[in-house]
Amino acid sequence: MPKAAPAPAKPASASTARSPNDRSTLHDRVAGVRSLSLALAAPLSDADATVQSMIDASPAKWHLAHTTWFFETFVLRDHVAGYRQHDERWPFLFNSYYEAEGKRHARDRRGMVTRPTLDEVREYRAHVDAALLAALPTLPDAARDLVVLGCHHEEQHQELLVTDILHLFAENPLEPALWRAPRKVPVEMPGPIGWIAHDGGVVEIGHGGSAEDFAFDCEGPRHQALLLPHAIADRTVTNGEWAAFIADGGYRDPRHWLSDGWAWVKADAIDAPLYWEQVDGAWTRFGLDGRRALDPAAPVTHVSFYEADAYASWAGVRLPTEAEWEAAAAGHDPRTGNFMDDAGPVEPRPSVDRPAFFGDVWEWTGSAYRPYPGFTPVEGAVGEYNGKFMSGQFVLRGGSCATPRGHARASYRNFFYPHQRWQFTGVRLAKDL
Amino acid sequence: MPKAAPAPAKPASASTARSPNDRSTLHDRVAGVRSLSLALAAPLSDADATVQSMIDASPAKWHLAHTTWFFETFVLRDHVAGYRQHDERWPFLFNSYYEAEGKRHARDRRGMVTRPTLDEVREYRAHVDAALLAALPTLPDAARDLVVLGCHHEEQHQELLVTDILHLFAENPLEPALWRAPRKVPVEMPGPIGWIAHDGGVVEIGHGGSAEDFAFDCEGPRHQALLLPHAIADRTVTNGEWAAFIADGGYRDPRHWLSDGWAWVKADAIDAPLYWEQVDGAWTRFGLDGRRALDPAAPVTHVSFYEADAYASWAGVRLPTEAEWEAAAAGHDPRTGNFMDDAGPVEPRPSVDRPAFFGDVWEWTGSAYRPYPGFTPVEGAVGEYNGKFMSGQFVLRGGSCATPRGHARASYRNFFYPHQRWQFTGVRLAKDL
Amino acid sequence: MPKAAPAPAKPASASTARSPNDRSTLHDRVAGVRSLSLALAAPLSDADATVQSMIDASPAKWHLAHTTWFFETFVLRDHVAGYRQHDERWPFLFNSYYEAEGKRHARDRRGMVTRPTLDEVREYRAHVDAALLAALPTLPDAARDLVVLGCHHEEQHQELLVTDILHLFAENPLEPALWRAPRKVPVEMPGPIGWIAHDGGVVEIGHGGSAEDFAFDCEGPRHQALLLPHAIADRTVTNGEWAAFIADGGYRDPRHWLSDGWAWVKADAIDAPLYWEQVDGAWTRFGLDGRRALDPAAPVTHVSFYEADAYASWAGVRLPTEAEWEAAAAGHDPRTGNFMDDAGPVEPRPSVDRPAFFGDVWEWTGSAYRPYPGFTPVEGAVGEYNGKFMSGQFVLRGGSCATPRGHARASYRNFFYPHQRWQFTGVRLAKDL
Amino acid sequence: MPKAAPAPAKPASASTARSPNDRSTLHDRVAGVRSLSLALAAPLSDADATVQSMIDASPAKWHLAHTTWFFETFVLRDHVAGYRQHDERWPFLFNSYYEAEGKRHARDRRGMVTRPTLDEVREYRAHVDAALLAALPTLPDAARDLVVLGCHHEEQHQELLVTDILHLFAENPLEPALWRAPRKVPVEMPGPIGWIAHDGGVVEIGHGGSAEDFAFDCEGPRHQALLLPHAIADRTVTNGEWAAFIADGGYRDPRHWLSDGWAWVKADAIDAPLYWEQVDGAWTRFGLDGRRALDPAAPVTHVSFYEADAYASWAGVRLPTEAEWEAAAAGHDPRTGNFMDDAGPVEPRPSVDRPAFFGDVWEWTGSAYRPYPGFTPVEGAVGEYNGKFMSGQFVLRGGSCATPRGHARASYRNFFYPHQRWQFTGVRLAKDL
Repeated sequence: MPKAAPAPAKPASASTARSPNDRSTLHDRVAGVRSLSLALAAPLSDADATVQSMIDASPAKWHLAHTTWFFETFVLRDHVAGYRQHDERWPFLFNSYYEAEGKRHARDRRGMVTRPTLDEVREYRAHVDAALLAALPTLPDAARDLVVLGCHHEEQHQELLVTDILHLFAENPLEPALWRAPRKVPVEMPGPIGWIAHDGGVVEIGHGGSAEDFAFDCEGPRHQALLLPHAIADRTVTNGEWAAFIADGGYRDPRHWLSDGWAWVKADAIDAPLYWEQVDGAWTRFGLDGRRALDPAAPVTHVSFYEADAYASWAGVRLPTEAEWEAAAAGHDPRTGNFMDDAGPVEPRPSVDRPAFFGDVWEWTGSAYRPYPGFTPVEGAVGEYNGKFMSGQFVLRGGSCATPRGHARASYRNFFYPHQRWQFTGVRLAKDL
Repeated sequence: MPKAAPAPAKPASASTARSPNDRSTLHDRVAGVRSLSLALAAPLSDADATVQSMIDASPAKWHLAHTTWFFETFVLRDHVAGYRQHDERWPFLFNSYYEAEGKRHARDRRGMVTRPTLDEVREYRAHVDAALLAALPTLPDAARDLVVLGCHHEEQHQELLVTDILHLFAENPLEPALWRAPRKVPVEMPGPIGWIAHDGGVVEIGHGGSAEDFAFDCEGPRHQALLLPHAIADRTVTNGEWAAFIADGGYRDPRHWLSDGWAWVKADAIDAPLYWEQVDGAWTRFGLDGRRALDPAAPVTHVSFYEADAYASWAGVRLPTEAEWEAAAAGHDPRTGNFMDDAGPVEPRPSVDRPAFFGDVWEWTGSAYRPYPGFTPVEGAVGEYNGKFMSGQFVLRGGSCATPRGHARASYRNFFYPHQRWQFTGVRLAKDL
Repeated sequence: MPKAAPAPAKPASASTARSPNDRSTLHDRVAGVRSLSLALAAPLSDADATVQSMIDASPAKWHLAHTTWFFETFVLRDHVAGYRQHDERWPFLFNSYYEAEGKRHARDRRGMVTRPTLDEVREYRAHVDAALLAALPTLPDAARDLVVLGCHHEEQHQELLVTDILHLFAENPLEPALWRAPRKVPVEMPGPIGWIAHDGGVVEIGHGGSAEDFAFDCEGPRHQALLLPHAIADRTVTNGEWAAFIADGGYRDPRHWLSDGWAWVKADAIDAPLYWEQVDGAWTRFGLDGRRALDPAAPVTHVSFYEADAYASWAGVRLPTEAEWEAAAAGHDPRTGNFMDDAGPVEPRPSVDRPAFFGDVWEWTGSAYRPYPGFTPVEGAVGEYNGKFMSGQFVLRGGSCATPRGHARASYRNFFYPHQRWQFTGVRLAKDL
Repeated sequence: MPKAAPAPAKPASASTARSPNDRSTLHDRVAGVRSLSLALAAPLSDADATVQSMIDASPAKWHLAHTTWFFETFVLRDHVAGYRQHDERWPFLFNSYYEAEGKRHARDRRGMVTRPTLDEVREYRAHVDAALLAALPTLPDAARDLVVLGCHHEEQHQELLVTDILHLFAENPLEPALWRAPRKVPVEMPGPIGWIAHDGGVVEIGHGGSAEDFAFDCEGPRHQALLLPHAIADRTVTNGEWAAFIADGGYRDPRHWLSDGWAWVKADAIDAPLYWEQVDGAWTRFGLDGRRALDPAAPVTHVSFYEADAYASWAGVRLPTEAEWEAAAAGHDPRTGNFMDDAGPVEPRPSVDRPAFFGDVWEWTGSAYRPYPGFTPVEGAVGEYNGKFMSGQFVLRGGSCATPRGHARASYRNFFYPHQRWQFTGVRLAKDL
């Protein structure tokens, strides 16, 4: 049997590159973000980077090109005189959903674009990076703001790139590993959930929009919210706890489930988190390091909102609202936790020193993703960023093991449809007092 | 050409029957609700009452039988010794979504049940009514509460029966009328929208659960909510205003639309409210009295949440939250307004003496339908009533021209998916101050 | 439990009416065919006659109206001066597929037309019958030919009416019976299949188009065909033989199946003929007299071409070609056999005195439905009759228990898609010599 | 704008390699076929070779591996002691439809397999080729027959590889070219179609199964067929003639179309052959050399059976039966004509010296693909080769510009569904005399 080339180790250099906010200048910030994307794509073949495994996912090549198109379009084209477009036909390919920017390639056909190749997309990145870094010193403030936005935008796509590759590899019957990972050291199981109580009252949540701290438009305005007395768990639900839910028939009892969730369970024959599989009677999970035994102490991940809600119902409690979550997380450092640039593999890890609210898994809240009071989208194409997705989705908080460190913050509002679960999504419980 | 039998007039007797809450005794209440359902179905043929026009809708016969099944199952079977079930095979046919009550006929096959006939379903109703009315005096309190719940449940289905028949008739190329209607007297156009301002602050919303006032479980508990300064319109948007939105290209400009809404517009080729059609260059609408010229002064109806949201965006404002709506409506009498038992036809009508918050059209709010703080579903099968639908839907408030008078109240939370529009749904605007 | 009205007996008067070709005059022929349709529809409620159970089927009301529209359009409108159209809006509803006759109501929405009612359609029939019978004596020959065509056309729809009602009733969980049937007298099992050998050589098949014998256009021209040496079975396959195929794993072994057939088996979870169900470990079938124990001696029916082909493959033989079938059937009387006007129920019956080639079940041949050499469709709208369906379908021969006696003949080419099986379809085997 | 790497010229070496049947030994035959596949794939990137553009198509990498799996499984595994399987997990990936060979990767997920890479598949080919060529001298006769079958099997996949790549490239908005092609020299238009008459009578068709001449099982047995008097065209229909059909409204008039064809035209908005597009008012076509002006003198290609049949109907004639075609082609040399190894580009070319029956385009016949009299599939897995596809498809004859020279013969029966048109399919007319 031929030996497939072994999966590479997670690149050490990336780890350094992954703390871009430490650097003080925008130049370093841009260079750091841009090089991290390349480092993440380094182990990918041209084919790995081209195929689209489902309509929710995009090819890695597309992520690399789309984030570049963002800088080229909104910064270089609009603000840099004499900039020469890399290829006039590519905006059609690499625009995502900005209706104001004209026609786009159909989302479900992104995987058809075998040309340009991955190497040609890397040349595109180099072309735009050179122009962008050269222009930085003389950019007007509005354009500099767009550069900062572009960096955060690219960090979002870094997480998608990693989770989309995971999904693609899971579709391959050979189940290849992206990165090799060290053998696991067994850890102690976390103790029972502790509950952080809150007496209720008016709190302030949302992002204030101060000049030095970046936030996406949907995180503001900062505003008052009224909490009622409640308690929130000091850690997320573990794989071991989830296995007990399964063993108790959790996926077979409609009483735990929202009606839409139950329809989804039956239509898609759902009986465990995504990527879980029983091998010789024991649960395994597929991850970026291939298929491995399930770690009962680690946070459960790849569960949908429907599953999260059903678990909470089974446990006799509920999911936190996003305001409750933000109030609880406000005092914690968003840069500590298991993020993408940790030394170890990209996967949720057991924790010993909780409560922590950042990293590991995005936590489903019970809040629908809707505008904050006073929210107004930015004018122009960039304004299509978040507001237009405000129906049918739920808010997730906290960041995951695939989030670049520094990208998470207490006010951050991630959002997905209630059936989606190919991101590193998990569950924190809450209850009324 | 043969003359089709002319559509009957809306029955005068129904009008009387439609104020069941005026009567003081439960006996009269039950008798009134039950007879209204029969009056609504009176002009229907066996075939009219059997066909299912889409998966969201149900046959009239099914509504008549399902509401009867509710009383038979939860009251007679569970609380009346010696009750003889009408037909042991019918619960399978007429259970709707109560998983705890066992297997059900597939929702999308309800229209296949040509037998039992409409007359046999009427016999079923008579059988159950006789047993129910006879048992009333000696029912325990818990069972009496279920009878009250059953009446409100049936009122919900009365509205669905009427809107489902409208949808069915609209599918018939001959566009039959259910009821004939008098010739319209032209009315004055309403003046411009006036704005009712609110300074913000903590208010109480939701239903308190007092013994004398009925409410569905999802309306409570009564709780504090924080409003920010805002204003709410003193009337709903009219057909004439909507026609201006269309003429301004409202359905062709993605900037006004939520992303999911725009996908819906394109996939379903939406370019006007449901049942609107241009005939010889002028807008008409199909209603329970057939196809007629559009009345520009009447409230627009049969619009989806997506359309409501797009209209508000086009107008530079937004939809109210359900808390804002309830705070504004709290001081108004929920029994005044254009309800199903009005003398005229069942359709929204121009108003002259606003602000009014009840009747005419259900008003889309910007609030996702989610549980109130402290909400707990009732135990048992009846507890499946509302809580399990709390994902993916939006709240509507106020009641419509197809709502039985007395069924609406300030705390009432109706809910539908954002693309649905076969109910009498309309739009009230709001804005931040 | 209420007693549903018992199913009526099959009408005795219909039996008489069902031998229309016995009468010598066209007047009697028209009157006989038209009254048989009414007799078949007699036990139907308005709802029974209105619902469409699947896209392949049509409502009984539609069959009654469409066959009437055929006479009204091609005879009365085109050939009878001063004929007053019954309703100018109805052709849109009741045209089937005649593109040349203009726009039609979408086939999959036929079940939405609750109005006109069944009674109004009966009035339509009376109106057209009166005009048609009055005009008969003075019709030009071309129009008389269209009347004859219309009678045969209506006989086709009589068979569809019956099989469509059977399909609709099978969708009803209560499984109502259309007609009551006498208790079965057990019969002897037929002996093993006998084989009728043929030495091969050139034969003549197809219809010669003589003036006195009606045939559809696709049955001609009469032409030479070359047979190779073969043998054809002297009876069709029985339910008992089919049960052995099932017991031997016939539906689980892909080796017996055409590739498209195997895909169909897996996609639709096919494991027995349509309407078969195991009740307490024994096979039952649903028929026009309700659900009953399977008769092992009767011909198997409600099997698709895929199943017929798989059965033949399992048995080590093949299906006959249509030329082989026609050559073998040529010497037999097409009016003997179990047809719709038999005294007993409409279902295939065991036979004792074979070989017989007519009645009981339509027999799948291995021949794709394609034009005979020299075939040319008739000019005009009536020419759309058969030729345009000549792709993707297979030929069936012989007529069934739901075919009006006199409608079958040796040259008759029925055709359906290989997955369809709601007609009374069965299997006769053949083999090479 | 960056210069995409220019498309390579069609490899000269391939041209030599493409006449494998010239060589006398099986060794050279195997080596020639195997190297041609590699030459065809030479200009492909890893991504080009991995993506699946639709369910009918397969990735080039899959074709390269599947043809190799065929030799590995049916020759090396079954007949060569001590053969070491290249990778035990790959048969699951590269089995196509042989049910007897066990489970297979789902056909519609073939494009998910980014690993093994194209290079790894080339290593697989080298591994199997070495073992196969080494084993050839000592293989038993049955195994040598399987090697011959494997070569013809691989030639089929060579044609699919080329047409699948064309389809994939056509899905790319940049419309890349696989091979560069010389500038066209304008040619004379062919004259009007000439008609080759046949008096009718019994002819012999099909393959006799002689030891020296290979044929697929479905081509036999050789048997008598009866022709009626007819004439067949001496050339295929040209692009110019097809443009006249379009200009005459051919795609908008249902009278020309089979019913299924008309449904397809309307559902898929078909208005021209695949890959045709109007640019600045003139027709262009996309081919393996990119998008170019249409050559009116060349045979039309990429038309479906439905289109072919509609064209013939519009022209007042019909398609030939496969027996008529074979009788007419029997006297012509199947190695002359425009095949894949011609010096020029792979596309149909105008002809001047007709009648010719081989090369350029596969010609739709009016014959459904069904077994010949006496046909019996081979035993075992290899027997699944052709027989199981004998429903729903039509026979094409003659070979195309993408067929390897030597692969075509008079008895060859190609088959596709009537809506498929991504092969090089064209039209020859016939008529009754």
